[in-house]
Amino acid sequence: MRHLIDFGDLTRAEWDSLYQRCSDIMDHPADFMDACRGRVMASLFYEPSTRTNFSFQTAMLRVGGTVFGFADPKSTSTAKGETLKDTIKMVSGYADVVVMRNPKEGAAKAASLYSDVPVINAGDGGHMHPTQTTADLTTITRLRGGVDGLSVGLCGDLKNGRTVHSLIKALAKFKGIKFFLIAPRELAVPEYMRAFMRENDMWFTEVTGLEAVIPQLDVLYMTRIQRERFVDPLEYERCKGIYVLTRRKLDRARKDLLVMHPLPRVDEISIDVDDDPRAVYFDQARYGMYARMALLTDLANQERKKPDPVEIGTKPVCSNPNCITQTELYLPPLVKQNGGVDCCAYCDKELR
Amino acid sequence: MRHLIDFGDLTRAEWDSLYQRCSDIMDHPADFMDACRGRVMASLFYEPSTRTNFSFQTAMLRVGGTVFGFADPKSTSTAKGETLKDTIKMVSGYADVVVMRNPKEGAAKAASLYSDVPVINAGDGGHMHPTQTTADLTTITRLRGGVDGLSVGLCGDLKNGRTVHSLIKALAKFKGIKFFLIAPRELAVPEYMRAFMRENDMWFTEVTGLEAVIPQLDVLYMTRIQRERFVDPLEYERCKGIYVLTRRKLDRARKDLLVMHPLPRVDEISIDVDDDPRAVYFDQARYGMYARMALLTDLANQERKKPDPVEIGTKPVCSNPNCITQTELYLPPLVKQNGGVDCCAYCDKELR
Amino acid sequence: MRHLIDFGDLTRAEWDSLYQRCSDIMDHPADFMDACRGRVMASLFYEPSTRTNFSFQTAMLRVGGTVFGFADPKSTSTAKGETLKDTIKMVSGYADVVVMRNPKEGAAKAASLYSDVPVINAGDGGHMHPTQTTADLTTITRLRGGVDGLSVGLCGDLKNGRTVHSLIKALAKFKGIKFFLIAPRELAVPEYMRAFMRENDMWFTEVTGLEAVIPQLDVLYMTRIQRERFVDPLEYERCKGIYVLTRRKLDRARKDLLVMHPLPRVDEISIDVDDDPRAVYFDQARYGMYARMALLTDLANQERKKPDPVEIGTKPVCSNPNCITQTELYLPPLVKQNGGVDCCAYCDKELR
Repeated sequence: MRHLIDFGDLTRAEWDSLYQRCSDIMDHPADFMDACRGRVMASLFYEPSTRTNFSFQTAMLRVGGTVFGFADPKSTSTAKGETLKDTIKMVSGYADVVVMRNPKEGAAKAASLYSDVPVINAGDGGHMHPTQTTADLTTITRLRGGVDGLSVGLCGDLKNGRTVHSLIKALAKFKGIKFFLIAPRELAVPEYMRAFMRENDMWFTEVTGLEAVIPQLDVLYMTRIQRERFVDPLEYERCKGIYVLTRRKLDRARKDLLVMHPLPRVDEISIDVDDDPRAVYFDQARYGMYARMALLTDLANQERKKPDPVEIGTKPVCSNPNCITQTELYLPPLVKQNGGVDCCAYCDKELR
Repeated sequence: MRHLIDFGDLTRAEWDSLYQRCSDIMDHPADFMDACRGRVMASLFYEPSTRTNFSFQTAMLRVGGTVFGFADPKSTSTAKGETLKDTIKMVSGYADVVVMRNPKEGAAKAASLYSDVPVINAGDGGHMHPTQTTADLTTITRLRGGVDGLSVGLCGDLKNGRTVHSLIKALAKFKGIKFFLIAPRELAVPEYMRAFMRENDMWFTEVTGLEAVIPQLDVLYMTRIQRERFVDPLEYERCKGIYVLTRRKLDRARKDLLVMHPLPRVDEISIDVDDDPRAVYFDQARYGMYARMALLTDLANQERKKPDPVEIGTKPVCSNPNCITQTELYLPPLVKQNGGVDCCAYCDKELR
Repeated sequence: MRHLIDFGDLTRAEWDSLYQRCSDIMDHPADFMDACRGRVMASLFYEPSTRTNFSFQTAMLRVGGTVFGFADPKSTSTAKGETLKDTIKMVSGYADVVVMRNPKEGAAKAASLYSDVPVINAGDGGHMHPTQTTADLTTITRLRGGVDGLSVGLCGDLKNGRTVHSLIKALAKFKGIKFFLIAPRELAVPEYMRAFMRENDMWFTEVTGLEAVIPQLDVLYMTRIQRERFVDPLEYERCKGIYVLTRRKLDRARKDLLVMHPLPRVDEISIDVDDDPRAVYFDQARYGMYARMALLTDLANQERKKPDPVEIGTKPVCSNPNCITQTELYLPPLVKQNGGVDCCAYCDKELR
């Protein structure tokens, strides 16, 4: 692996190998204290995301590397008036690995075309956030010994949740997963995700209530329901309590359930759940740091390499207004196939 | 010591031991270059305080540790919409020690209830700033060989000065201190501080002029007088010059006087004093860094430990509008006794 | 060398020695991984300059040092209400070397008067930016084996370009340089630069077109032409295309030409030039990092030393509204001679 743009870029074998290194780091952190000694990570956050930013920074520091970058483009001169290409050429001249968060979909893919060093996608708009998925899988694997065969409840806004969609796709690499998709009808999982699960022979059921299914779960992945996602505010008021996890609802759950959340939470998990041993969402953040340590020991130690020249584009690849090709017109007009359909190779939107 | 929230948490023996380590570091800095190797400090500044922030950062770097964090919450996504508890759970998962500056009184105490690692208070509103006090005591001890028996002049706004009150309390751990409290009547030391000094058998006298007492002092601790603290602007104009230290006023002072100031100064010390060997306020900043190095070699090397669960609160503990319990309602309703009086365990305000 | 304020402070022998170290670092980076171990760099950017800031930070990290500072004074409390002197006294107490960018001309010189450690000028308004010049010379020397005898084209806004003026002055240390000054008449090199070249027996010619001279060049140094520099907007429209470097214009250039640019570019170099092997502007940024590494291994390892006391000033030295002495009135009234003329020792403006 040269870059990590999308978790789907990893084969199952690559994931297993990444997790193995992560596990070694957790068991013997002192052995990895100098794994990235002399290596420098660029941390380019074109929008604030303190949690992800801190996780990457501490990951790099804990394997002996160092960090520079910006946490918010408002305090930089680079972000304005310079193409993404030129910024990446400059930064990849200084750094051994580039971590980038960007509000535009496909920005990390675009950066990878010009970078002399590996690029890690730390979130590109509503598109991908692969290291959140590595954090999630690391947590499950570490605490349950493996992922195969688990019953996973996904609860909350399953329509808009990037995290949830990535997790479903990632779990396609494993066997015997059963999904319990728990959401209000307005925020049910999109049809293309259903198609994905069917294509991959994944078992799933959709329900609107949490309480009925909670006893069957090995993992309960909570996400936030935002009021503004509802067309009908009365519908929001009617159903919000249903998707709040309380200590009482946990009474009927298994003793070895894992309650997970990508954080930050608002009120979808009651504070009295925090002291329950099944509440692992704060540990999950820490496992995310270990997963990033494993990733960086690989990617920050690769050879510098000038990428091959690419075609110079002149117009956006697709019509998605949030696609990076809308603003960086010189990007090459790359197309890829997703399930036999032509899609933008940056933002994955279907081309018409 | 697990956390440093209030300098009063330290016994005299703990202070002596901390100073001894600080002294060792000043004499043999190379011996401590790796004292915090592999350790990571979180630096959470919920309000800018560049001087304190830089001092902590360089302290950690000089003992071989590393640093991440924010200097101003405006450029973070964490600060908003997340409880202090959740931020601390996350950050203490990444870090080995947490340094926090927060405008709310009691914030550091609150953080310590949830942190898996030691918390250091780098200032919580107008409440406490214990590492300023360690900087002050280190300066005096280093340059005068000890603190016992010194005549200490405190000059300026003695009514509102957190620094001055902390220093008076800290000096109660030593013997034979004489205080010369030099302030305009409007800004004299508050009655509860007078009560404190009497209870602790500390000698003090209150005067309104600097020149008359300057020959008697071993230490002159200057602080700023802010115009807006005066009810009567004419009174400000009348008295401001009295509290400005000039080279001329220093003529009658002892040859081994220490002129100190927590910085930044505005004009309460004339610039022509800077080159006088008795002016040690810039050295004081450097001693503050050494004191923080000593503190971090202890606290950043402690074992991670999940804190015991605490009660879930539902309302503010006290009526102080700046108390952290006003906004973080889940904090447990903790009460402590100060001199036999029930006080808020976060902000120390008397309960009624 | 104690401080680097102006590239002119370096003798030719000092430059040769600096380049030699830089060359050693490029050839054997691992030998310098600990060259600044235990040393701390303060990075004080009073205006954002992400590129320069990143270059200095990564330079320090790659020689084993560490970094603290601010990237933008808006997020600091230090910048406001404190003199530059007091900030520098504080910061130089914490750091081993201070890197400063400041919008005021002469700010770095002013800082050097009070600092206990070496100061490096990372740009002081429109005045000096000596490490850009070290980056430029390093690039040429590395890629052409030396600087003597080269034909150097300087193209774009030669009237206002600080970078270009510094480079011309720096090249006076070398032999047999031929300058081709390529600019619209409105933006030709100023008369005092012509005088400088004549005094130093430097060969130069001024032309208004790029295409005619390009075949004669060893180095083509491109700079940006800003629309707002033109009195007559029609003149801008008429001539802007002339100064844009395209792949077609490069056809007639030498095979070993170096195309350089201080970056960021806007559109003065067409994107299709980037993949031409003669386009070295991105490498130039990387060479700048190596040059800063060489500089820091020297300056960050010097002994701390309190500077000698200086006179206390009371008014600005000169009438330049951007001179640091306009706002920091206590600065000593220093005058120096440039070519027999009395000039402000801070901003180099002629005194009248």
